[in-house]
Amino acid sequence: MKSLSDKRVVFLVEDGYEDLECWYPKIRLEEEGAETVVASRSTGTRHSKHGYPIEATQAPDEIDLSSVDGVVIPGGTGSPDKLRRSSEVAEFVRKVNETGGIVAIICHAGWVPISAGILSGRRVTGYQAIKDDLINAGAEYLDEPLVRDDNLISSRHPGDLPEFARGIIEALSSR
Amino acid sequence: MKSLSDKRVVFLVEDGYEDLECWYPKIRLEEEGAETVVASRSTGTRHSKHGYPIEATQAPDEIDLSSVDGVVIPGGTGSPDKLRRSSEVAEFVRKVNETGGIVAIICHAGWVPISAGILSGRRVTGYQAIKDDLINAGAEYLDEPLVRDDNLISSRHPGDLPEFARGIIEALSSR
Repeated sequence: MKSLSDKRVVFLVEDGYEDLECWYPKIRLEEEGAETVVASRSTGTRHSKHGYPIEATQAPDEIDLSSVDGVVIPGGTGSPDKLRRSSEVAEFVRKVNETGGIVAIICHAGWVPISAGILSGRRVTGYQAIKDDLINAGAEYLDEPLVRDDNLISSRHPGDLPEFARGIIEALSSR
Repeated sequence: MKSLSDKRVVFLVEDGYEDLECWYPKIRLEEEGAETVVASRSTGTRHSKHGYPIEATQAPDEIDLSSVDGVVIPGGTGSPDKLRRSSEVAEFVRKVNETGGIVAIICHAGWVPISAGILSGRRVTGYQAIKDDLINAGAEYLDEPLVRDDNLISSRHPGDLPEFARGIIEALSSR
Protein backbone atom coordinates (compact mmCIF):
# COMPACT_ATOMS: atom_id res chain seq x y z
CA MET A 1 0.00 0.00 0.00
CA LYS A 2 2.75 2.47 0.91
CA SER A 3 4.61 3.04 -2.32
CA LEU A 4 7.05 5.75 -1.22
CA SER A 5 8.36 4.51 2.13
CA ASP A 6 12.00 4.85 1.05
CA LYS A 7 11.59 8.40 -0.27
CA ARG A 8 12.52 11.73 1.34
CA VAL A 9 11.09 14.98 0.00
CA VAL A 10 11.92 18.56 0.99
CA PHE A 11 9.22 21.27 1.03
CA LEU A 12 10.58 24.81 0.57
CA VAL A 13 8.37 27.44 2.20
CA GLU A 14 8.45 31.02 3.36
CA ASP A 15 5.83 33.30 4.93
CA GLY A 16 2.83 33.66 2.65
CA TYR A 17 2.92 30.13 1.23
CA GLU A 18 -0.39 29.00 -0.26
CA ASP A 19 -1.94 26.79 2.42
CA LEU A 20 -3.18 23.88 0.34
CA GLU A 21 -0.33 23.91 -2.19
CA CYS A 22 1.95 23.01 0.71
CA TRP A 23 -0.20 20.85 2.94
CA TYR A 24 -2.04 18.79 0.33
CA PRO A 25 1.06 17.30 -1.35
CA LYS A 26 2.84 17.11 2.04
CA ILE A 27 0.16 14.97 3.73
CA ARG A 28 -0.43 13.07 0.48
CA LEU A 29 3.24 12.00 0.29
CA GLU A 30 3.13 11.04 3.98
CA GLU A 31 0.06 8.94 3.22
CA GLU A 32 2.24 7.05 0.72
CA GLY A 33 4.89 6.54 3.39
CA ALA A 34 7.39 9.20 2.29
CA GLU A 35 9.32 11.28 4.78
CA THR A 36 8.77 15.01 4.36
CA VAL A 37 11.11 17.74 5.56
CA VAL A 38 10.18 21.41 5.73
CA ALA A 39 12.98 23.84 4.94
CA SER A 40 13.13 27.61 4.66
CA ARG A 41 15.85 30.25 4.33
CA SER A 42 16.37 29.73 8.05
CA THR A 43 14.69 27.46 10.58
CA GLY A 44 11.62 28.49 12.55
CA THR A 45 7.87 28.96 12.20
CA ARG A 46 6.41 30.23 8.94
CA HIS A 47 2.78 31.21 8.27
CA SER A 48 0.69 30.60 5.19
CA LYS A 49 -1.27 33.19 3.22
CA HIS A 50 -4.16 32.55 5.62
CA GLY A 51 -1.98 32.17 8.73
CA TYR A 52 -1.60 28.40 8.98
CA PRO A 53 1.68 27.80 10.81
CA ILE A 54 4.38 25.37 9.70
CA GLU A 55 7.73 24.61 11.28
CA ALA A 56 10.85 24.80 9.11
CA THR A 57 13.35 22.44 10.70
CA GLN A 58 16.20 22.88 8.24
CA ALA A 59 17.90 25.45 6.05
CA PRO A 60 18.83 24.30 2.53
CA ASP A 61 22.59 24.30 3.14
CA GLU A 62 22.12 21.93 6.11
CA ILE A 63 20.39 19.22 4.08
CA ASP A 64 22.31 16.12 3.02
CA LEU A 65 21.63 16.08 -0.72
CA SER A 66 22.35 12.38 -1.08
CA SER A 67 19.29 11.62 1.05
CA VAL A 68 16.88 13.81 -0.96
CA ASP A 69 14.59 12.38 -3.65
CA GLY A 70 12.90 15.62 -4.51
CA VAL A 71 11.85 19.14 -3.65
CA VAL A 72 8.30 20.53 -3.70
CA ILE A 73 7.85 24.31 -3.85
CA PRO A 74 4.36 25.63 -3.06
CA GLY A 75 3.10 28.93 -4.42
CA GLY A 76 1.52 31.88 -2.67
CA THR A 77 3.10 35.00 -4.08
CA GLY A 78 5.12 35.91 -0.99
CA SER A 79 6.75 32.56 -0.41
CA PRO A 80 8.62 31.94 -3.70
CA ASP A 81 9.31 35.69 -3.96
CA LYS A 82 11.27 35.45 -0.69
CA LEU A 83 12.85 32.05 -1.38
CA ARG A 84 14.35 33.12 -4.73
CA ARG A 85 16.38 35.87 -3.02
CA SER A 86 18.49 33.25 -1.25
CA SER A 87 21.55 31.91 -3.07
CA GLU A 88 21.49 28.86 -0.75
CA VAL A 89 17.94 28.06 -1.88
CA ALA A 90 18.88 28.47 -5.55
CA GLU A 91 21.97 26.29 -5.08
CA PHE A 92 19.91 23.60 -3.33
CA VAL A 93 17.27 23.47 -6.08
CA ARG A 94 20.00 23.42 -8.76
CA LYS A 95 21.72 20.48 -7.09
CA VAL A 96 18.52 18.49 -6.59
CA ASN A 97 17.83 18.97 -10.29
CA GLU A 98 21.40 17.98 -11.27
CA THR A 99 21.19 14.73 -9.32
CA GLY A 100 17.88 13.84 -11.02
CA GLY A 101 15.72 14.52 -7.98
CA ILE A 102 12.12 15.64 -8.55
CA VAL A 103 11.58 19.39 -8.73
CA ALA A 104 7.83 20.05 -8.28
CA ILE A 105 6.46 23.59 -8.59
CA ILE A 106 2.95 25.01 -8.50
CA CYS A 107 1.42 28.44 -9.04
CA HIS A 108 4.02 31.21 -8.45
CA ALA A 109 6.69 28.70 -7.35
CA GLY A 110 8.23 28.77 -10.83
CA TRP A 111 10.13 31.89 -9.77
CA VAL A 112 12.46 29.72 -7.68
CA PRO A 113 13.71 27.44 -10.49
CA ILE A 114 13.93 30.55 -12.70
CA SER A 115 16.41 32.02 -10.22
CA ALA A 116 18.12 28.63 -9.95
CA GLY A 117 18.62 28.83 -13.72
CA ILE A 118 17.27 25.38 -14.55
CA LEU A 119 14.28 26.07 -16.83
CA SER A 120 15.91 26.73 -20.19
CA GLY A 121 14.53 24.41 -22.85
CA ARG A 122 12.09 22.71 -20.52
CA ARG A 123 8.31 22.25 -20.70
CA VAL A 124 6.53 23.81 -17.73
CA THR A 125 3.29 25.31 -16.49
CA GLY A 126 2.50 27.75 -13.68
CA TYR A 127 0.15 30.50 -12.62
CA GLN A 128 -0.88 32.64 -15.59
CA ALA A 129 0.62 35.77 -14.00
CA ILE A 130 4.16 34.35 -14.24
CA LYS A 131 3.78 32.87 -17.73
CA ASP A 132 6.02 35.59 -19.24
CA ASP A 133 8.71 35.03 -16.59
CA LEU A 134 8.76 31.31 -17.40
CA ILE A 135 9.00 31.95 -21.14
CA ASN A 136 11.70 34.62 -20.68
CA ALA A 137 13.68 32.04 -18.69
CA GLY A 138 13.73 29.85 -21.80
CA ALA A 139 10.92 27.45 -20.90
CA GLU A 140 8.07 26.30 -23.10
CA TYR A 141 4.80 27.23 -21.33
CA LEU A 142 1.80 24.88 -21.46
CA ASP A 143 -1.63 25.76 -20.03
CA GLU A 144 -2.37 22.31 -18.55
CA PRO A 145 -3.19 20.98 -15.04
CA LEU A 146 -0.01 18.93 -14.92
CA VAL A 147 3.14 19.18 -17.00
CA ARG A 148 5.92 16.66 -16.55
CA ASP A 149 9.29 17.12 -18.21
CA ASP A 150 11.44 14.29 -16.88
CA ASN A 151 12.12 15.23 -13.22
CA LEU A 152 10.36 18.61 -13.47
CA ILE A 153 6.69 18.55 -12.38
CA SER A 154 4.49 21.64 -12.58
CA SER A 155 0.88 22.72 -12.04
CA ARG A 156 -0.99 26.02 -12.27
CA HIS A 157 -3.04 26.61 -9.09
CA PRO A 158 -4.82 24.89 -6.15
CA GLY A 159 -7.49 23.51 -8.50
CA ASP A 160 -4.78 21.33 -10.05
CA LEU A 161 -3.75 19.73 -6.74
CA PRO A 162 -5.21 16.26 -7.48
CA GLU A 163 -3.14 16.10 -10.70
CA PHE A 164 -0.09 17.72 -9.06
CA ALA A 165 -0.02 15.13 -6.27
CA ARG A 166 -0.49 12.26 -8.69
CA GLY A 167 2.31 13.61 -10.89
CA ILE A 168 4.74 13.84 -7.96
CA ILE A 169 3.87 10.34 -6.74
CA GLU A 170 4.32 8.82 -10.19
CA ALA A 171 7.64 10.59 -10.73
CA LEU A 172 8.95 9.53 -7.30
CA SER A 173 7.73 5.95 -7.80
CA SER A 174 9.67 5.56 -11.03
CA ARG A 175 12.85 7.03 -9.56
CA MET B 1 -6.40 4.54 -11.29
CA LYS B 2 -9.55 6.42 -10.20
CA SER B 3 -11.26 4.13 -7.78
CA LEU B 4 -14.13 6.36 -6.66
CA SER B 5 -15.44 7.88 -9.90
CA ASP B 6 -19.01 6.76 -9.16
CA LYS B 7 -19.06 8.15 -5.60
CA ARG B 8 -20.55 11.37 -4.24
CA VAL B 9 -19.53 12.66 -0.83
CA VAL B 10 -20.93 15.60 1.13
CA PHE B 11 -18.67 17.79 3.31
CA LEU B 12 -20.50 19.54 6.16
CA VAL B 13 -18.81 22.78 7.22
CA GLU B 14 -19.51 25.95 9.12
CA ASP B 15 -17.36 28.98 9.95
CA GLY B 16 -14.30 27.95 11.94
CA TYR B 17 -13.77 24.58 10.23
CA GLU B 18 -10.24 23.20 10.59
CA ASP B 19 -8.57 24.01 7.28
CA LEU B 20 -6.79 20.75 6.55
CA GLU B 21 -9.43 18.46 8.07
CA CYS B 22 -11.74 19.72 5.34
CA TRP B 23 -9.44 20.29 2.38
CA TYR B 24 -7.15 17.28 2.69
CA PRO B 25 -9.89 14.61 2.47
CA LYS B 26 -11.83 16.75 -0.03
CA ILE B 27 -9.00 17.02 -2.57
CA ARG B 28 -7.93 13.44 -1.81
CA LEU B 29 -11.36 12.08 -2.72
CA GLU B 30 -11.36 14.24 -5.86
CA GLU B 31 -7.97 12.76 -6.73
CA GLU B 32 -9.69 9.35 -6.65
CA GLY B 33 -12.40 10.63 -8.96
CA ALA B 34 -15.17 11.18 -6.41
CA GLU B 35 -17.55 14.11 -6.64
CA THR B 36 -17.53 16.28 -3.53
CA VAL B 37 -20.32 18.62 -2.45
CA VAL B 38 -19.93 21.26 0.25
CA ALA B 39 -23.00 21.83 2.41
CA SER B 40 -23.69 24.03 5.40
CA ARG B 41 -26.75 25.11 7.39
CA SER B 42 -27.45 27.46 4.52
CA THR B 43 -25.62 28.13 1.26
CA GLY B 44 -22.84 30.72 0.95
CA THR B 45 -19.21 31.31 1.77
CA ARG B 46 -17.74 29.91 4.99
CA HIS B 47 -14.26 30.58 6.40
CA SER B 48 -11.89 28.18 8.12
CA LYS B 49 -10.21 28.65 11.50
CA HIS B 50 -7.43 30.47 9.63
CA GLY B 51 -9.71 32.22 7.14
CA TYR B 52 -9.56 29.90 4.13
CA PRO B 53 -12.83 30.40 2.23
CA ILE B 54 -15.06 27.61 0.98
CA GLU B 55 -18.36 27.82 -0.86
CA ALA B 56 -21.32 25.87 0.51
CA THR B 57 -23.54 25.16 -2.47
CA GLN B 58 -26.27 23.20 -0.71
CA ALA B 59 -28.18 22.99 2.54
CA PRO B 60 -28.70 19.47 3.94
CA ASP B 61 -32.45 19.37 3.28
CA GLU B 62 -31.84 20.13 -0.42
CA ILE B 63 -29.60 17.11 -0.99
CA ASP B 64 -30.99 14.03 -2.73
CA LEU B 65 -30.06 11.32 -0.24
CA SER B 66 -30.21 8.54 -2.82
CA SER B 67 -27.20 10.08 -4.58
CA VAL B 68 -25.03 10.35 -1.46
CA ASP B 69 -22.38 7.76 -0.60
CA GLY B 70 -21.12 9.44 2.52
CA VAL B 71 -20.64 12.52 4.63
CA VAL B 72 -17.35 13.90 5.95
CA ILE B 73 -17.46 16.31 8.90
CA PRO B 74 -14.25 18.25 9.60
CA GLY B 75 -13.39 19.55 13.05
CA GLY B 76 -12.39 22.99 14.22
CA THR B 77 -14.33 23.75 17.37
CA GLY B 78 -16.64 26.35 15.89
CA SER B 79 -17.81 24.39 12.86
CA PRO B 80 -19.35 21.25 14.46
CA ASP B 81 -20.55 23.38 17.39
CA LYS B 82 -22.66 25.38 14.92
CA LEU B 83 -23.69 22.44 12.72
CA ARG B 84 -25.11 20.40 15.63
CA ARG B 85 -27.62 23.16 16.42
CA SER B 86 -29.44 22.49 13.13
CA SER B 87 -32.15 19.82 13.14
CA GLU B 88 -31.79 19.58 9.34
CA VAL B 89 -28.09 18.74 9.72
CA ALA B 90 -28.84 16.12 12.40
CA GLU B 91 -31.59 14.60 10.25
CA PHE B 92 -29.29 14.48 7.22
CA VAL B 93 -26.48 12.72 9.12
CA ARG B 94 -29.00 10.29 10.67
CA LYS B 95 -30.39 9.39 7.25
CA VAL B 96 -26.95 8.95 5.64
CA ASN B 97 -26.11 6.58 8.49
CA GLU B 98 -29.42 4.69 8.15
CA THR B 99 -28.87 4.07 4.46
CA GLY B 100 -25.37 2.72 5.14
CA GLY B 101 -23.51 5.73 3.79
CA ILE B 102 -20.11 6.55 5.23
CA VAL B 103 -20.09 8.93 8.20
CA ALA B 104 -16.52 10.22 8.65
CA ILE B 105 -15.67 12.50 11.59
CA ILE B 106 -12.41 13.98 12.81
CA CYS B 107 -11.38 16.03 15.85
CA HIS B 108 -14.39 17.89 17.36
CA ALA B 109 -16.73 16.68 14.56
CA GLY B 110 -18.05 13.91 16.84
CA TRP B 111 -20.43 16.46 18.32
CA VAL B 112 -22.56 16.28 15.16
CA PRO B 113 -23.26 12.51 15.23
CA ILE B 114 -23.80 12.84 19.00
CA SER B 115 -26.62 15.29 18.29
CA ALA B 116 -27.83 13.05 15.46
CA GLY B 117 -28.11 10.29 18.08
CA ILE B 118 -26.22 7.63 16.13
CA LEU B 119 -23.23 6.80 18.36
CA SER B 120 -24.71 4.47 20.97
CA GLY B 121 -22.82 1.19 21.08
CA ARG B 122 -20.32 2.19 18.43
CA ARG B 123 -16.51 2.30 18.44
CA VAL B 124 -15.17 5.78 17.79
CA THR B 125 -12.26 8.15 18.31
CA GLY B 126 -12.04 11.94 18.34
CA TYR B 127 -10.18 14.87 19.84
CA GLN B 128 -9.29 14.19 23.46
CA ALA B 129 -11.33 17.18 24.66
CA ILE B 130 -14.60 15.57 23.52
CA LYS B 131 -13.80 12.05 24.75
CA ASP B 132 -16.30 12.36 27.62
CA ASP B 133 -19.04 13.59 25.28
CA LEU B 134 -18.50 10.58 23.01
CA ILE B 135 -18.59 8.15 25.95
CA ASN B 136 -21.67 9.83 27.45
CA ALA B 137 -23.39 9.37 24.07
CA GLY B 138 -22.90 5.62 24.50
CA ALA B 139 -19.83 5.15 22.29
CA GLU B 140 -16.71 3.14 23.07
CA TYR B 141 -13.74 5.56 22.82
CA LEU B 142 -10.42 4.37 21.35
CA ASP B 143 -7.26 6.50 21.31
CA GLU B 144 -6.12 5.49 17.81
CA PRO B 145 -5.34 7.37 14.55
CA LEU B 146 -8.20 5.67 12.72
CA VAL B 147 -11.20 3.82 14.08
CA ARG B 148 -13.60 2.14 11.71
CA ASP B 149 -16.90 0.69 12.92
CA ASP B 150 -18.68 -0.46 9.78
CA ASN B 151 -19.73 2.79 8.01
CA LEU B 152 -18.47 5.04 10.84
CA ILE B 153 -14.91 6.36 10.31
CA SER B 154 -13.18 8.53 12.90
CA SER B 155 -9.81 10.15 13.60
CA ARG B 156 -8.44 12.39 16.34
CA HIS B 157 -6.70 15.44 14.82
CA PRO B 158 -4.89 16.79 11.71
CA GLY B 159 -1.90 14.52 12.42
CA ASP B 160 -4.15 11.55 11.62
CA LEU B 161 -5.13 12.84 8.17
CA PRO B 162 -3.16 10.25 6.15
CA GLU B 163 -4.96 7.45 8.04
CA PHE B 164 -8.31 9.27 7.96
CA ALA B 165 -8.20 9.66 4.17
CA ARG B 166 -7.14 6.07 3.65
CA GLY B 167 -9.97 4.90 5.93
CA ILE B 168 -12.58 6.88 4.01
CA ILE B 169 -11.29 5.66 0.64
CA GLU B 170 -11.30 2.02 1.75
CA ALA B 171 -14.80 2.28 3.21
CA LEU B 172 -16.16 3.97 0.06
CA SER B 173 -14.41 1.46 -2.20
CA SER B 174 -16.06 -1.49 -0.48
CA ARG B 175 -19.50 0.12 -0.57
